[in-house]
Amino acid sequence: MFSLTVRDHVMVAHSFNGEVFGPAQRLHGATFIVDATFHRAELDADNIVVDIGLATTQLHDVLDELNYRNLDEVPEFAGINTSTEYLAKIVADRLADRVHAGSLGEGARGLTEISLMLRESHVAWATYRRAL
Amino acid sequence: MFSLTVRDHVMVAHSFNGEVFGPAQRLHGATFIVDATFHRAELDADNIVVDIGLATTQLHDVLDELNYRNLDEVPEFAGINTSTEYLAKIVADRLADRVHAGSLGEGARGLTEISLMLRESHVAWATYRRAL
Amino acid sequence: MFSLTVRDHVMVAHSFNGEVFGPAQRLHGATFIVDATFHRAELDADNIVVDIGLATTQLHDVLDELNYRNLDEVPEFAGINTSTEYLAKIVADRLADRVHAGSLGEGARGLTEISLMLRESHVAWATYRRAL
Amino acid sequence: MFSLTVRDHVMVAHSFNGEVFGPAQRLHGATFIVDATFHRAELDADNIVVDIGLATTQLHDVLDELNYRNLDEVPEFAGINTSTEYLAKIVADRLADRVHAGSLGEGARGLTEISLMLRESHVAWATYRRAL
Amino acid sequence: MFSLTVRDHVMVAHSFNGEVFGPAQRLHGATFIVDATFHRAELDADNIVVDIGLATTQLHDVLDELNYRNLDEVPEFAGINTSTEYLAKIVADRLADRVHAGSLGEGARGLTEISLMLRESHVAWATYRRAL
Amino acid sequence: MFSLTVRDHVMVAHSFNGEVFGPAQRLHGATFIVDATFHRAELDADNIVVDIGLATTQLHDVLDELNYRNLDEVPEFAGINTSTEYLAKIVADRLADRVHAGSLGEGARGLTEISLMLRESHVAWATYRRAL
Repeated sequence: MFSLTVRDHVMVAHSFNGEVFGPAQRLHGATFIVDATFHRAELDADNIVVDIGLATTQLHDVLDELNYRNLDEVPEFAGINTSTEYLAKIVADRLADRVHAGSLGEGARGLTEISLMLRESHVAWATYRRAL
Repeated sequence: MFSLTVRDHVMVAHSFNGEVFGPAQRLHGATFIVDATFHRAELDADNIVVDIGLATTQLHDVLDELNYRNLDEVPEFAGINTSTEYLAKIVADRLADRVHAGSLGEGARGLTEISLMLRESHVAWATYRRAL
Repeated sequence: MFSLTVRDHVMVAHSFNGEVFGPAQRLHGATFIVDATFHRAELDADNIVVDIGLATTQLHDVLDELNYRNLDEVPEFAGINTSTEYLAKIVADRLADRVHAGSLGEGARGLTEISLMLRESHVAWATYRRAL
Repeated sequence: MFSLTVRDHVMVAHSFNGEVFGPAQRLHGATFIVDATFHRAELDADNIVVDIGLATTQLHDVLDELNYRNLDEVPEFAGINTSTEYLAKIVADRLADRVHAGSLGEGARGLTEISLMLRESHVAWATYRRAL
Repeated sequence: MFSLTVRDHVMVAHSFNGEVFGPAQRLHGATFIVDATFHRAELDADNIVVDIGLATTQLHDVLDELNYRNLDEVPEFAGINTSTEYLAKIVADRLADRVHAGSLGEGARGLTEISLMLRESHVAWATYRRAL
Repeated sequence: MFSLTVRDHVMVAHSFNGEVFGPAQRLHGATFIVDATFHRAELDADNIVVDIGLATTQLHDVLDELNYRNLDEVPEFAGINTSTEYLAKIVADRLADRVHAGSLGEGARGLTEISLMLRESHVAWATYRRAL
């Protein structure tokens, strides 16, 4: 089993609803260090998991849709707690759509899974893993 | 599949029995950087894996039972090599007990697994993963 | 010359004024990983730079005044670009006040400088260093 | 499930064939930070996954065969793209051979899997995982 | 005293002359993680050390001149040991030229020093610091 | 101004005297990640700060004198709080002696300073810097 990971980051503002979030119910923000991992059983004809250049630019494009924004004001997230865990899923799903659309190259059609890790600090991070 | 990780650390003294341990048979010590990861299939009603505040304090409490101690003198570890691998299991099992006791919140009952990584240096670490 | 560093973090929302900031003129946020370093020429009577427990709790208290806030709405920062560099100075100055007030212990009166590093991502950070 | 990881590094030159590699088609080089992870269901009689000393020296010996070399001139890799992914497999397979040959000790016969991660930079890494 | 750091990386091949280099006399390669730090006494009118966008793109451009190359074949480095230390100076000097040429913005004229750190592995790095 | 850093680690047990140390008055232990930095104004004839091979082995030898020991039982440290700060000085001084004795090579006689950083955890570290 092979995987390849590329890292980028995104900086957003947001607030949470629910007592469990304590002071994080106030509008605040986060830098998320984002690790996108692509999995497959065998390497492609070029001996790689996926084109690292395309993986990097596609991840960057997905993050650009969120970057430097107040997620509380993004219509798609209205009424949703944009937790680290949830955002990991959002980024993974959008990357999966791009894999299926061919944006990561023809070779990427051999990918079987994506994992998405978001680090919110040096002491906390979340991951979402899904099939392709 | 989702996971959330929180990090803390613990500083202990101990010694090992067995030729395989070489100079580590002498009384020495270690800082273990501890990453506790909680896994579940779907997010809870608050859109999270587990209350990160409770996860942090419960991990801290479990580590506090070991912190600043000579493990050779802890009755529970008498005659046991408290290797990094073994201590990963100890911490994971104690966290699991706390999940089952409700100390990580009602939402934590949806957790399916715990992984526990202990880093003993920048070049060596161990992990234990178990079901809940 | 000796120094001791303790690390913590803080999560804030803010926006910037000025074309140089590009998309960061929008309301967004950041996690800052904060490294506070205390300097002195010789160790104190306990053979330390400063009480690490007090250094940790005092840094935490200073960050708590900023944590989980929208800095655009904090009166003190009205009309000010709360850049990473500027926030490093704010935190350093507030820690310096606490050193002078004795909150880091009597031994801390021998400190000569504070450096404050704020990491805004894995690829960018800023530092402010000042005398005590 | 337990695992133990040891870290080392290797510095090589190489070039790639294929348009997908862009400027990396030119002769260039890389430092790979190498994390070798050994997995097993239960700990051995010494309460460990594998002798960390042997794991470290065997990994070092495997990397020494590649270290400070131009992989383009190594006969075994003639006509092969020595991508990070591919090199992860090479190192994992050679470690697996050593496990089977008894070089990691008798206890290592209980190992069930090896994962090999190669970090080529702070923003990209690859992993290969295989059964023993 | 303020500073701002941006990080990038570069992958090169090279060899060394001199017995002190041992096996590194053979053609091999390295990933250098590059931290460029800009220093100044006071912040500029925008409350920053330097435009982080310009700092990032200018560092990237300087590294691009070296990236994916065999330094043994770059005429400028003929007969020179392109050690980590030496390359830190090369990158710092080229960045300094760009500061003086105005490529990092008018505000950058207030910079007083540049430090350049190149990490060649997780266990070795070099720094060069110079006035502007 | 140039510098070169090499990293290693050491695992010790010890206890502290003094109320300021709280629970660390009990016998416990630590892994110290050790960064030894060598400084000089100009590079030597080989274009380096110091022979990285010698720097690595000499640091390792210095740490070996402390490694896997209970510092409370080392006669030299009797009645002394072996704090992280103090141990940074011990290691720096012993390396300085080796520089003066020629153990880091003739070129090392051009070194002007040594800095020694000991990381005791992911959230605390200390540095000692001295002239040569």
